[in-house]
Amino acid sequence: MNTKKLMGSAVVVMMMSGSMPALASWEALPDVAPAPENNPTTAEKVELGKMLYMDPRISSTGTVSCNSCHNIMEGGDDSRAVSMGVHGKTGGRSAPTVWNSAFHSVQFWDGRVDLLEDQAKGPITNPIEMGEPDHDTTVAKIKAIPGYKPYFEKAFGADSINIDNLAKAIAAFERTLITPNSAYDKYVKGDKKAMTAQQVRGMNTFAETGCTSCHSGAAFNGPKMPFGQGFYAKFPTFTDNDYDKKYNLMADKGREEATGKAADAHMFRVPTLRNITDTAPYFHNGSVNDLSEAVRLMAKTQLNKDLSDKEVEDIVAFLGALTGPYPEITMPRLPATSGSSLVAE
Amino acid sequence: MNTKKLMGSAVVVMMMSGSMPALASWEALPDVAPAPENNPTTAEKVELGKMLYMDPRISSTGTVSCNSCHNIMEGGDDSRAVSMGVHGKTGGRSAPTVWNSAFHSVQFWDGRVDLLEDQAKGPITNPIEMGEPDHDTTVAKIKAIPGYKPYFEKAFGADSINIDNLAKAIAAFERTLITPNSAYDKYVKGDKKAMTAQQVRGMNTFAETGCTSCHSGAAFNGPKMPFGQGFYAKFPTFTDNDYDKKYNLMADKGREEATGKAADAHMFRVPTLRNITDTAPYFHNGSVNDLSEAVRLMAKTQLNKDLSDKEVEDIVAFLGALTGPYPEITMPRLPATSGSSLVAE
Repeated sequence: MNTKKLMGSAVVVMMMSGSMPALASWEALPDVAPAPENNPTTAEKVELGKMLYMDPRISSTGTVSCNSCHNIMEGGDDSRAVSMGVHGKTGGRSAPTVWNSAFHSVQFWDGRVDLLEDQAKGPITNPIEMGEPDHDTTVAKIKAIPGYKPYFEKAFGADSINIDNLAKAIAAFERTLITPNSAYDKYVKGDKKAMTAQQVRGMNTFAETGCTSCHSGAAFNGPKMPFGQGFYAKFPTFTDNDYDKKYNLMADKGREEATGKAADAHMFRVPTLRNITDTAPYFHNGSVNDLSEAVRLMAKTQLNKDLSDKEVEDIVAFLGALTGPYPEITMPRLPATSGSSLVAE
Repeated sequence: MNTKKLMGSAVVVMMMSGSMPALASWEALPDVAPAPENNPTTAEKVELGKMLYMDPRISSTGTVSCNSCHNIMEGGDDSRAVSMGVHGKTGGRSAPTVWNSAFHSVQFWDGRVDLLEDQAKGPITNPIEMGEPDHDTTVAKIKAIPGYKPYFEKAFGADSINIDNLAKAIAAFERTLITPNSAYDKYVKGDKKAMTAQQVRGMNTFAETGCTSCHSGAAFNGPKMPFGQGFYAKFPTFTDNDYDKKYNLMADKGREEATGKAADAHMFRVPTLRNITDTAPYFHNGSVNDLSEAVRLMAKTQLNKDLSDKEVEDIVAFLGALTGPYPEITMPRLPATSGSSLVAE
């Protein structure tokens, strides 16, 4: 294997697979996530955003916070096939991990919004997620908690409690939820002992099989794109197999449900593979519980390839090298409404 | 006001109210909570207990952790009148705060168990709380998460994953959830500037009114008792007023529902008043949203006294001196089931 430094931490690896050379560009995750021009990440926004992210009082019942479905003490999701919102209601898609979501150029499975700021506003008024009647209700609630005011002032200035700033603070916090320095990152940066022999073998199998045609880039979610420009793939692409039937993969029309265009049928934003060992169950409908099965399924439905057990094991081992380490996070103190409650439902 | 040191941080304060001297013993909260002989608090148990306390996978749906209803980022409860468990089900009583619950000699509103260890087991199999079919199911789940094993081994030795140790670890963590060093504690320890003039006035009014006949001791939940021996009060005691009708106070028979004895009708364990500014809404049924109203109601239903607005304001100010500071807590990492999910429902 010959490696050649390109720029920064990007490395080009030439791999010989039979007679066919496969080119894969291996990149370490940046230490800082990109932010849009109108919302540079500041310590004050991050501090406020952490409070809002963890505060279940944002929901109509006072029981569902951002963290309920995107649990940062876990893999950034909720271990469920589909999430459970207010009143035990369930949705149709599995919660994507919040970890490294800052490296997606569009948000949601169908890429229907551009930024984390836009994403953060969605669940608040979704009747099966946080169930608020409208954003004004949420803003009024936050205004009724005196302890939030100084944090908004520090982050955004006077009289700044509104839905846009609430979303900006949450997005700023989410941009700190990244996991550089995984075993893979160390390996790519030159520490050749950071990954096991099996993981290195799995990395090569991963590229040779063709997984990198979609799962490329530092976050393994496709090439770097400007905010708002999504990288999508049709899932499943190959349907001449039993997987659709077994896991009901085609019931969800993907991006077509957002755009109304037939050309977007079954198109999904390519998800990150980072921390995938911690984010079961898998796929948009959370139908596959086991990572080995997910790898086998992807090879068949996306590349029409049948992987051997050994190839699957090696790839799974490699995927393990993409997990963590997670930063240590201090719990925020959620300010009280001193001597009164604002949860009505 | 004459003060005289007794032992440790206990102080006897003689207060002159008109011609009648009122005696109240003001105690600061100990820096360490008491633990039962068979479960001394250790750092290893506390670390494991924090993980289990925060882990929603203990519930049948994977959505309800101990922290869901006893949120340590808030006042140790959930801002709701009655808590919401799995599938949006609600119970009949308001979640008591976990902060300083280690200073209760019996647990639950009706004192039906002796220790935090016993309490921790209850919600797991309660169909409207965590909804597990039995403790074996929960233990099997924890055993299926490889990352928990070393933590149990460090805390309890080899082959130690069982429901008793799970509860012991949670209880050990809860015994660290205490808030000494409030303004009141500092005041009692000698820093006479720690409380405002209004708070000192409120403290005297609190004692003179007779609130200390029940809300005495370091945690304001009655005299220190051995584990298993509860300190109860009948609520409401005086019913010749409109409060029962307004807030439906007598629908719940309290301890009678646990013991079956008519003598226990409407008897409740005297709750702590610490951090009460952060634990609205109030009472066993969470029926009173406002702390001033709660104070007025208690004076009438328990002591048959009508407080003036000023007396209420002063007492509320004093109660504010019993809040916090809360310790800083680092979020635990909840170990994943690497590449598979164990939430079935």
